[in-house]
Parts: sequence; structure tokens; C-alpha cells
Amino acid sequence: MINLCLFGAGRIGSIHAANVSQHPDVQIKYIVDVNRTVANQMAEQYGATVTDVDTALEDTTVAGVIIASSTDTHADLMIRSARAGKTIFCEKPIDLNIDRVKECLQVIEDTQVACALGFNRRFDPQFNQLHNQLNQGKIGELQMVSITSRDPAPPPAHILPATGGLFRDMMIHDLDMARWLLNEEPTAVFASASCLIDPTIGELGDVDTAMVILKTTSGKLCQISNSRQAVYGYDQRIEVFGSKGMLQANNNTAINLSFSGEQGVISEKPLYFFLERYADAYKAELDNFIATIRGTEKPLANQHDGLQALALADAALESATTGKQVILN
Amino acid sequence: MINLCLFGAGRIGSIHAANVSQHPDVQIKYIVDVNRTVANQMAEQYGATVTDVDTALEDTTVAGVIIASSTDTHADLMIRSARAGKTIFCEKPIDLNIDRVKECLQVIEDTQVACALGFNRRFDPQFNQLHNQLNQGKIGELQMVSITSRDPAPPPAHILPATGGLFRDMMIHDLDMARWLLNEEPTAVFASASCLIDPTIGELGDVDTAMVILKTTSGKLCQISNSRQAVYGYDQRIEVFGSKGMLQANNNTAINLSFSGEQGVISEKPLYFFLERYADAYKAELDNFIATIRGTEKPLANQHDGLQALALADAALESATTGKQVILN
Amino acid sequence: MINLCLFGAGRIGSIHAANVSQHPDVQIKYIVDVNRTVANQMAEQYGATVTDVDTALEDTTVAGVIIASSTDTHADLMIRSARAGKTIFCEKPIDLNIDRVKECLQVIEDTQVACALGFNRRFDPQFNQLHNQLNQGKIGELQMVSITSRDPAPPPAHILPATGGLFRDMMIHDLDMARWLLNEEPTAVFASASCLIDPTIGELGDVDTAMVILKTTSGKLCQISNSRQAVYGYDQRIEVFGSKGMLQANNNTAINLSFSGEQGVISEKPLYFFLERYADAYKAELDNFIATIRGTEKPLANQHDGLQALALADAALESATTGKQVILN
Amino acid sequence: MINLCLFGAGRIGSIHAANVSQHPDVQIKYIVDVNRTVANQMAEQYGATVTDVDTALEDTTVAGVIIASSTDTHADLMIRSARAGKTIFCEKPIDLNIDRVKECLQVIEDTQVACALGFNRRFDPQFNQLHNQLNQGKIGELQMVSITSRDPAPPPAHILPATGGLFRDMMIHDLDMARWLLNEEPTAVFASASCLIDPTIGELGDVDTAMVILKTTSGKLCQISNSRQAVYGYDQRIEVFGSKGMLQANNNTAINLSFSGEQGVISEKPLYFFLERYADAYKAELDNFIATIRGTEKPLANQHDGLQALALADAALESATTGKQVILN
Repeated sequence: MINLCLFGAGRIGSIHAANVSQHPDVQIKYIVDVNRTVANQMAEQYGATVTDVDTALEDTTVAGVIIASSTDTHADLMIRSARAGKTIFCEKPIDLNIDRVKECLQVIEDTQVACALGFNRRFDPQFNQLHNQLNQGKIGELQMVSITSRDPAPPPAHILPATGGLFRDMMIHDLDMARWLLNEEPTAVFASASCLIDPTIGELGDVDTAMVILKTTSGKLCQISNSRQAVYGYDQRIEVFGSKGMLQANNNTAINLSFSGEQGVISEKPLYFFLERYADAYKAELDNFIATIRGTEKPLANQHDGLQALALADAALESATTGKQVILN
Repeated sequence: MINLCLFGAGRIGSIHAANVSQHPDVQIKYIVDVNRTVANQMAEQYGATVTDVDTALEDTTVAGVIIASSTDTHADLMIRSARAGKTIFCEKPIDLNIDRVKECLQVIEDTQVACALGFNRRFDPQFNQLHNQLNQGKIGELQMVSITSRDPAPPPAHILPATGGLFRDMMIHDLDMARWLLNEEPTAVFASASCLIDPTIGELGDVDTAMVILKTTSGKLCQISNSRQAVYGYDQRIEVFGSKGMLQANNNTAINLSFSGEQGVISEKPLYFFLERYADAYKAELDNFIATIRGTEKPLANQHDGLQALALADAALESATTGKQVILN
Repeated sequence: MINLCLFGAGRIGSIHAANVSQHPDVQIKYIVDVNRTVANQMAEQYGATVTDVDTALEDTTVAGVIIASSTDTHADLMIRSARAGKTIFCEKPIDLNIDRVKECLQVIEDTQVACALGFNRRFDPQFNQLHNQLNQGKIGELQMVSITSRDPAPPPAHILPATGGLFRDMMIHDLDMARWLLNEEPTAVFASASCLIDPTIGELGDVDTAMVILKTTSGKLCQISNSRQAVYGYDQRIEVFGSKGMLQANNNTAINLSFSGEQGVISEKPLYFFLERYADAYKAELDNFIATIRGTEKPLANQHDGLQALALADAALESATTGKQVILN
Repeated sequence: MINLCLFGAGRIGSIHAANVSQHPDVQIKYIVDVNRTVANQMAEQYGATVTDVDTALEDTTVAGVIIASSTDTHADLMIRSARAGKTIFCEKPIDLNIDRVKECLQVIEDTQVACALGFNRRFDPQFNQLHNQLNQGKIGELQMVSITSRDPAPPPAHILPATGGLFRDMMIHDLDMARWLLNEEPTAVFASASCLIDPTIGELGDVDTAMVILKTTSGKLCQISNSRQAVYGYDQRIEVFGSKGMLQANNNTAINLSFSGEQGVISEKPLYFFLERYADAYKAELDNFIATIRGTEKPLANQHDGLQALALADAALESATTGKQVILN
């Protein structure tokens, strides 16, 4: 039996807990959450024990930790877990401050623990298959990547400040996807952004609409289009273009039904939100983490990917702010 | 805890067992199968006990039975289970002989047990949603139903004779779907069939390619197109047409990826076989059965549906054989 | 310069006249129509002369005739044109009475004139390409044909009686398409039909909703689904299925635009009516006729196709009336 | 009868000549081309006279000119035609040098002639409809525009230098489309470009792969993705996104046929080249020009649009060269 400790019993924590319960030989042994009510509820559901960080990390039967607590606790929990020798799964971002991220990476390197980072989209069957076919040469030499990534609705205004803003909260996923697909580090970042959806977002110093162009050393180009609000649902599409053709990962729908009537031919909207759209991705991500604990797989996304994606997000934010392309090295 | 007995630990039995295991308060208590090796293996996996029919049915803690054994055992097991007062889930068909089916129905009526029949497609999210929208008047008055139903490959020749032939084995699903969507009993059946795929099938007295037209009293029409072999996969489409438009349930694919190359724009084939295509349907079907045991739902398809579908299949077979339309009353 | 005479200056005649005007070395020399106003108008537009049948047929500079007048005049005009040695293009049907059709065919045979029949759909780029790929073996051995053919709205009640009814007016096109695609004569016809759209149609002794199954000697099957009223437009789809796959000719739309909004993803309806849907087919049909006059091509559909299609339509009508399959020889 | 003079009897000139011939009351009176053979051939076909610039412009019966000659002759012919009081249709670009373009515009302003510029894509039924629906508020407030524009193959190397390079030859169409759809002038331009397809292009100082981000004063964003070689054909798609949804103009295909086989579901590639893809656009463009001569319409794209698009192309080139965003005023 593999014992895990779950830090954070909120929305994302619940997904991971449910997915863990599908593995007969893996269990959540401990749950740690500042909200005891929520923690107790989940503990009862899965036969876990509510405890504190120290107790969980001192328990030598705990093989791994899932860090799904609030962003500002990630780095501290990663460092302590690493020092306790636990295999780590941490939701992105490691931290909003890149120096703090580097500190974390140092500890992980020193302690030699394996660390998986929650870039769940790499595990999406759709994008995963696209990545495979790309790597198998299906489109020949990759030349351009286009990522369309639009949320169905902005986060509530009161949590916006804590997110780190569109670039570090939302686009970071697309930047990771770009790196993964380009298979080469982008060395130049240009971003342009606006507040067109909700003035409140602008007043908080954030943007809700953004476009980015990335360029790699070899000249490959990538464009990302982000919006905080697509009224037709969660718009998650990727297109890769190369010397032998193009692969398109289109939106997923719940069912494949269409109605032909006087108004036209009406088909389903994309799945509405990330919990539905990426349900399979979350499962596969957890499978990969458990296999990492077992030593049979390596994390598909690790702490270095977390650092690089944040560096790109910071560069994009800087570019959008200054109007200048940012060169990375 | 709801205790179930599973008759038959083969391919379909395994699906039901796996789906039962997702219900924390339901368990397979007994497994009965002539193949003890297979039964023991499954029993170990799910903590069940391998036993015989009598023991299972005499156990008063057993609330329901899942009959997934070979077709020729269905009627006997249904009758014995009904007499033992168990709630019944039975894979289609009840029996290939319509008189035997009527005998069964009599026992079920006498014993007043609830009985669900495995017309799994009614539970398919795609077809279920189509049925809902149809009933909500989305296409106005229903006028025509078109069902395309093609297997990826014929069954192995050695099991063909036991299946009852294309009409009673394969088309019976489509005939049930037709009844469910027409919401009215077809009273005239015409069928035309050929052996175009594999002469072995013809030598066994069966067909592999068939078309049917059904007509109801009010004049609604339904056409069914069957083939035992669609090289592009499991082709399962339904179209309903009425005074206000048309609803189409198209094929499902594993992912929604397309490749544009010199050969054209290539998208995914339909899911290859019924286990994948109807995975969600099997889950929902079992949920409905468990809810039936709990008394909170009624079976979406019951023994009467089994009888009617078989009567239509028999009529289609007769029509294909005689070249004459068969009138039902 | 190739001189033509056009019989009938109505809706279809206008299409042919416009298409003739695109050929610099072909002209409508004469127009014959009982409605002199319409005839004069068209004559002025294209520099033609309004005349009567005799004058037109006696003019030895007239190489061919286009018969686009009312159905009851077709046979007579064909016979007179054949005797005058003109190459004939005639709109379908030759006549609603099959004996009269045979009479016509005899005259055409005796006079050895070339005769093209207006089964315009054979010239549709979509269906023509499907036919080509079918003949090139793209789907291996053909096993099943499915034709969906639905009008946007029924003809006005007052002209219904003259049309010959759904089978001889509307389904005749689909029966011709079936023959062309099956590449083998259907020998068994079963039809089922209802009046579900407009009771007036039923009162006139006609139907508005019909399904047919055809079977050929070798066992190939074909189903046709007809409706007089599809509120979403002119529904013209064909599907051919064989040992190596399936070809589908889907509906055409005016443009390829889609809107994603809160209601779903809305794309264009099919082109609304036959004039738009088959505009290219009418052009190609006329090209074939002109090439027939020049002796460089043969008619893609000729008088024999007209006879066979009518025989099938008559058989379908008989089957729908009697409830019995009709065997042809 | 409206008399026109056609300057340039090459590929584009031929399209315009053929489209003129569809207008019964418009004719090409004169053709001017340095290649007399080609000019004579076309003159014979359409009953025109081959002449020189002066003769054509001095003929007071000539109402308009179509300038479809080589780019370096455009400005001179425009100026001379304007001074002769002719209504002008000129293929883009007016000139590759922006000062020369401004000179032209001055003459046109002084002479008060109407001038249409050949941004043919504005006339494409697909994009035109998208523009209409956008203006009718279908997607609410416009926020983002995405233009994908990829040629099937690069121009021959020997003509590349004369084209002005990717930005001024190819992307200029997309920049015009962006302006038209944004309905607001872009004030900031960032471009990133590479030579990834053919090193010869790079040796000539040009690029073959490019991405651009435009921003307007109100914060609307637009991205353009260009490639000189899409092996699957001419990829011309536009997506506009706003507060109430998204409109997508997808690629057009010749026919709407799909094949389902063991390899997947294969549908048609986009139309291969601009002559086919924009055939209807060229017709509509000419209709607009003729209506301009008649005084019943104004040019949908005029000389000012030519100037603005070139200014954006120049800015994009500068940005791609310097790596800096260019601010326009």
C-alpha cells in the first residue's frame, strides 16, 4: 500500500483524492488543510486522518505528498517535503516569485527527491496524442504552434490578486504547452494585452485579453491567444504546423449530437470548464505520479518545467507592460 | 450494503463487475460460472465467493442478480431468480424462442419482481440525450427514424449459430432503439438481407447485410441499416426527423484530432467496438439497476421490451425469408 | 454556331437558356412556349426568335432541342423532334405513363437520334465524384447505398396532381441515382409511405413521407428516405458502403461559417433549393448535351434511364399501395 | 456600353477580362501589355484592340481602367489614368515605396477620380458574410481577431525579389483584412519571422514564416500567422472573438465528400490556390468596380486602404528586422 499525504482539501484536492481512490493499492493517509471542516469531511469519505504538516512528513510510511493548497504555501511545503524525502506532486505554480522557485529547485536537487508539477494539460489524451504524433514526424519539421486558450469566465474579483495575474495564473499553462510542443526553449517573448472584458480586472492591475509570440533559437514561432471569458465555454485548441502538414486538437464536447433546424445546424458547445475538460488528464497525471513513486516512470512535467514556464510568464508580463520584446538566455 | 449475484464471468460479466465495484455500498457477493478458473479469478479480484445457482438464490441477503451467462441459460435463471424474489438484470435476449420468453414474463408477472433488460444503448449519453430532446419536442412531430448500425467485424463463425442470427442477435438492439424513439409500436415490418461479406455466414443460414423498414399505426417510418463489417470501426448513428427539424447522433471518437496533409484532412475513426463505444452506457445501465433495487427508479428497459424487440426481430427474419411485409398486431 | 430550340421558357427553361448563353458558339435560336409574354421576354434577352413547334423542327440549322415544357408535352415533343432528326435533351419524366414512354423509346430507336434525359443529379460535382471514386474501387465491393432526399417544402397543392405524385415526381431522381450507383438493376422494390406533413396532400391521394428498399440480383441493398418538407433546407445526402469503407456526400452550404455562442456552435444550413444546390449540375448537364450534339460525348443519362427509373417509381408506388414487395424482371 | 482599358494581360488580367465578359453592357475596349503575343490573343478572344497607354487614356469613351500589370508600373498608370479622368481599379500594391504611394494618392485626390484597390478578400462571400455579421453585433464587442493565411507553395525564387517580400506581398492582404475587421486603425505592430521552408528565400533576404500581433487604440488585438507553404493547400481562415461569441470562417473545399476507411475519416483539402479559392471574390470585386463607374456604389477598398496596409506591412517588416514593436500614429 502506498501512503500519500494530501495538502489542501479544496476543489483540486478533491479531484486528486477521488482519483487516488481508484487505485486499490494507494491511499490518502493524511489530509492537511487549514479548513478543518472540509478536511474532516474528506477524511471521513476516504478513510484518511486529518493531521498537521509535521506529523504527516515525519511518518516514514508516507511515500509521497500532493500539494494542492493555496499558491503561497507551495514552496514551503515542497521544501519541507523534499527534506523529509517524500516524492512530490505540486500544483502549479511553485511560487509567483522566481527567486523563491529557484530556492525550491535547489532543495529538490540537494535532496534528490522526484518532483512532479501539475501541468495537467500534458496528460490530456487529445494534446498527448498530438504531442506523440508531432514527435513521430507526422507533420515533418515543426514550424509554427498556435494555442487558443480561453476560460469560460474570469475568476471572482476577490481572488484575482492572489492568482498572480493572467500571465502567471492562466497563460503559464499555455507557455508550458508551447515549450513541450516546440521541444526547444523560446528565447524571445513578445506579449500584448488589454482589459476588454471587465474593468474591475483592469483596476486590479491585471489584463483579461492577451496575445503572445514566442520564438526559439532555430526560428520556430508560437502564438498564444488568451481570454478570460469565452461565452461559448472553455476554448482549448492547439494547432501545430510543419513541413508535412498540420495537426489540430479541436475542442471536446460532452456528446456528439447536432440539430438541424430553421436557425442552422447547431452542434454542442465545448465542455464548460477545466474540471470536465481535463478530467481524464487529472487521472493520467495522478497515474504518472504514482508510477513515479513506484520508480517505473518519471514525471512528465517536473520542477524545472515549473521554473521555465514561470520565467516565460514573467517575460510575457514584462513585455506586455513595456511594449518591448524580452530576450531570454 | 447491497449484495448481488453475478451469473456469468465472461466479457460482459466483467464489465458489470467492474462497474459494481465503483459503488461503495454495493458488492458482488457470489459469482456463478461453469468456468471455475475464470470465476475464481474474478472472485478474488472483487472479494466475492464462487458458488452455485441454488446457494446464491437461497441467500436472503442477495437482493439482485445480474444474468450475463450464455443466452440459453437466461430464461431458466430469470425464472429461478424471480421465484427467489430477486431483482433481475438480464442481458438481452431473454431467449431466442418467443414462447419461452412469454413463459418467463408470466413468472415475472406472478412473482412481481422488478426486471431490467440489457438494452444498453438506451443508456448511451448520446442516444439518451437524443431521446430527451425528441421527447421535449425539439423536432416537433416525429416523422422518420434512421438507424445505422454496423459492427467492426463479424463474430467468429463458430459462435454464430448460437447467436440466433443477425436479426435476433444484432438488429434486436436497433429494433429496441426504434421502438423507444418511435414511442409507438411498429405494426408493419419489411426486411431485405444478403450475405455479402463472408460466404461462411451464408452457409450457416445467416445474413451479414440487412435493411429494414418499420411502420407504426400513425404512419411514422423507420429504416435500419445493418452490416456485420465496417472496416472503419463501430458505426452507430441515429437520425430522427420531424416537423421542426432533425437530430443526429453521430459517431464518437476517442479524441478530436485532425491531420491536414497532402492526402486530405484526416480525422479519427469511430471508437472500434461496443466495449469502448458503450462504456458509459454500461455504467449508467448498472446505476439504473441498483436504483431499481433501491426502489428509487424503474428499469429503463424491462422484460416487455425484451419480448417486443424479439417479436420484431422474428418478424424481420420472416420478412427477409419470405420477401413479404409482416403485419403485427 | 450550334442552334438550339428551347421548348418551355419557365423556371427550368430559364436555367438552360442562361447556361447556353455561356457557350460562345451555341445559341438558342427558337423559343416555343404557350405563354407568349414569357417567351418574348426570354427571346429578347438572348436574341432568340419566338416560334411554333413546326417551324422550329423544320429548320435544318437547328441541331438540338431542349424540352423543358410541361410534363404532358414531353413525349409528343420528343417524338416529333426525333422524327425531325434533332438531338434531344428532355427534362424528366418522359411521361407518367410507362407505355407512352416505351412508344417514345421506339421512335428514338427507329430514328437513331441521341437523347439525353434531365437526371441532373448525376452531374452534381459532389455525386459525380462519389460515383467516380466508387467505380475506382475506393470502397471495395459495394454493399449498401443510402440516399436521403428531402425537399425544403412541398409543391403548391394545385400543381401536385400534375406531378404524378411523390414516387414519380420526386423519388424518381433518387431511383435513378440508386441505379447509377448500384451499377446493377434493382429487381425487388419495397416501399412504405405516409402522409404526415400536410393532409391536403393525402386528400389528393398522394404521400409526403416515404422509405424504399431496393435489392439487386447480386444482393446489394439500397434505402431511400424521402420527405416533402425539411425545415432546415434541401437535404441531399448519399452514402455508399462497401468492403473497404464508406463514402459520404454531405450537404452543401453557401458558405463555411460557424458561430460559437451560448446556444452552441451554429453552422450553415444546406442550400435551400434545387436551383442553388444543383446550379453546377445544370451547367454540366448542358455541357454534356452540347458535347453530345458535337459527337464528342454520349448522354450521361438517356431515354433508357428514364424508362427504368419510371418503372422503379411505378413499382414503389404499387408496393406502397399494396404493402407488398414488387419483383421486377 | 461601358468601355474599359485593361493594363496587363497576365494571370490576374485574364481573370478580370473573363469576369468583364459576363457583363453584357461592359467591354474591354483596349488591352495594353508589353507582351504583344499575349495581348493579341486576349484581344481576339474578347473583341478588344491592342494599343498603348496614351491612346487608351486619350479615348474619351473609356470610362475606367483595370491596372493588372507588374507592380512597378502601378503608380505611374494610376497617376496617368487619374489625370485622364478615368475611374481606376488597381491591383495591390499601389507601389512598394510608401512615398510614391502618397504621391499617387495626392493625384487621385486632386483629380477626384474614384479608385478601387484589389483587396479581393473583402469580396470573398465567406469573409464578407463574417464582416457583415460582425458589424451586426453577432459577437458583441469585438476583442480579438485571428487570421491564418498560408500559401500552398512559395512563389518561384526568380520573382521573389520583385514581390517586395512576405510582408508587402503576402501579409499585406491579411493586414488589410485586419484593418477591415477591427474597424479601427492598429497603432502598434509587432512581427516575428523566420526562414524555415526554403533557404533560397532567406538568401534573398526574405522570410517564409511569420507571425504578427496588432493592437488598436482601444486595446483590440489581432494575430496573423503566415506561411509560404502549407502542403495541404491554401489555408485561409479567420476567427473573430468578442463578448458574445466567436465567428469562424473555415476553409472552403471543392466538394463536401468524406471517406471512412481503415486510415480514418478523410475529407477534402482546402481549395488549392487563390484563383480557385477567390474566384467568386474576383467576380464581386469587378461588379463593385463597374458599379463604381456607374456611380451606384463606392469602392469597398480604395487607395487609402492601400496606403494603410502598406504602412502596416512596412511596420511589420521593420519590427521583424529590429525585434522591436513599431508604434504608428
